[in-house]
Amino acid sequence: MSVYTRVQAADLEDFLAGYSVGELEGFEGISAGITNTNYFVDTGSGRWVLTLFEKLSDAELPFYLDLMDHLAGQGVPSAHPVARRDGRFHARLNGKPAALVHRLRGASVDAPDARQCAAMGAVVAEMHKAADSFGGQNANVRGLDWMQRTRRELAERLDAEDLALLDDELAFQQAAARQNLPRGVIHADLFRDNVLFEGHHVSGLIDFYYACQDILLFDLAVICNDWCIDDQGRFDPAAWQALSAAYARRRPYSADEHDAWPGVLRLAALRFWLSRLQDWLFPRDGDDTHQKDPAPLKEILLAHRERTPALLPTGPA
Amino acid sequence: MSVYTRVQAADLEDFLAGYSVGELEGFEGISAGITNTNYFVDTGSGRWVLTLFEKLSDAELPFYLDLMDHLAGQGVPSAHPVARRDGRFHARLNGKPAALVHRLRGASVDAPDARQCAAMGAVVAEMHKAADSFGGQNANVRGLDWMQRTRRELAERLDAEDLALLDDELAFQQAAARQNLPRGVIHADLFRDNVLFEGHHVSGLIDFYYACQDILLFDLAVICNDWCIDDQGRFDPAAWQALSAAYARRRPYSADEHDAWPGVLRLAALRFWLSRLQDWLFPRDGDDTHQKDPAPLKEILLAHRERTPALLPTGPA
Repeated sequence: MSVYTRVQAADLEDFLAGYSVGELEGFEGISAGITNTNYFVDTGSGRWVLTLFEKLSDAELPFYLDLMDHLAGQGVPSAHPVARRDGRFHARLNGKPAALVHRLRGASVDAPDARQCAAMGAVVAEMHKAADSFGGQNANVRGLDWMQRTRRELAERLDAEDLALLDDELAFQQAAARQNLPRGVIHADLFRDNVLFEGHHVSGLIDFYYACQDILLFDLAVICNDWCIDDQGRFDPAAWQALSAAYARRRPYSADEHDAWPGVLRLAALRFWLSRLQDWLFPRDGDDTHQKDPAPLKEILLAHRERTPALLPTGPA
Repeated sequence: MSVYTRVQAADLEDFLAGYSVGELEGFEGISAGITNTNYFVDTGSGRWVLTLFEKLSDAELPFYLDLMDHLAGQGVPSAHPVARRDGRFHARLNGKPAALVHRLRGASVDAPDARQCAAMGAVVAEMHKAADSFGGQNANVRGLDWMQRTRRELAERLDAEDLALLDDELAFQQAAARQNLPRGVIHADLFRDNVLFEGHHVSGLIDFYYACQDILLFDLAVICNDWCIDDQGRFDPAAWQALSAAYARRRPYSADEHDAWPGVLRLAALRFWLSRLQDWLFPRDGDDTHQKDPAPLKEILLAHRERTPALLPTGPA
């Protein structure tokens, strides 16, 4: 959500005239985030987040925005797009597809405690269940095909050790058999900065723009790697126990999922190590851009290649 | 929203299992209101209002709940029903149709100031415009037919003076020609206690269960009578100027509306005088019920029969 595109008040007013949200009262750029440009926008009838999509096309957006509408409509605490007067969830602003989403309360938490982890596990299970009735289809744009393409793009910029690790890990992932794992719509990017809390309640899941159909376990692996493992690869068993047990109470894991878990943890670390390498080595232009250091994800990947935490450490809570 | 029906935790838990909102954490009855039973409900993923419909049937509910979903989806700050896993907005609880709605922030304001009135005028105009694209159809259940039926029901309990006033006013309203007035979906019950504020912003319109297709001016007349006229029929011109001018900036009034306004103000006073008389003279059973005194509406009606404020007192702001 770095600011790649600078929006002018007059253009924003024209854009807002397509909605029933009253008149523009104020707006400011949001520096956090990586992929899109985001602004806080206040109007006569509420507070919103405006997203200008820097990479997604008009044709790609309905999957994400319809999914967000579906989930919020079922009471999942998640970012909710606003329909325009013409019924669409997006239009063009500054020559880019843009959408207005309800601004959620709360703030992301750097060091979630066990109660917050339990709340997160429950919300992710509810999100997976609520998405069962969503009809849209979208492949994972950060799946193994993308990983192979990115490997080729990055190869000449990586040192021999990193390239060897990458090739070995890609070969392992390519060989993994995951066709028996439960699939559905996943968020695919549930880092702590994409989850808002008010006290111990999850008040919002945001940034659904990597959502896709994939194995449900991938969401849990992304969360485990970011919420319960520190930058040196050290694992917090109490936090993970709370989160995973709360999830499993609502959607019990299959035996296949227990077996597949170590490899999926590695897959999640690999995916974000690669995308951060790509952003790091090929930065984009913008007023106030934001990249994340790839190194911690490599450490987590290396740690998982030695030993991984269990999917459900000590049985249901 | 008096508590006519007492809900047990076990029944509520069964009801909530049909939603993706997590588990029951607490609930309590709400005493305010007149028609339905309402509870505040907290679950793992949010805070909600549960409504048990005491008079509306399963067949009647979709109009109201679909309308609320439509308006909230367009960013109108209004009560938003939660979809069940099966896609419906309502199911049965304690043998009655029941729905779960997002609990909005804010509180109703007894004495709204001019800024709050201006915010309300803008939100009502946005609501009327946002409802243009809503497809549902519903006649006004508190229209002239209902008034005539209620007159017959109340006749023997009214004194001669009230009955004469009622008959004279009904004859006047029956003769009024309103076919040239702009029509659309109206809320039809926008008393101060159905509007929540956070500071000077409208944070929620609630209680849409009298919404219907009717003349748009009716909403403004209900608001003018309750927000800008006190119990003795004394008018606050500054409050009404702020509200009506803010509305008219977004939807300018027609010449027919200016002409019809005095009669519509009387119609709105008559409708609520009658329903309050009915609730007063034929009270319903319940644990914690709530009626409103009909007398102030009669005073307002009498005041309007002498002289009414202009629709737009001093031109656009």
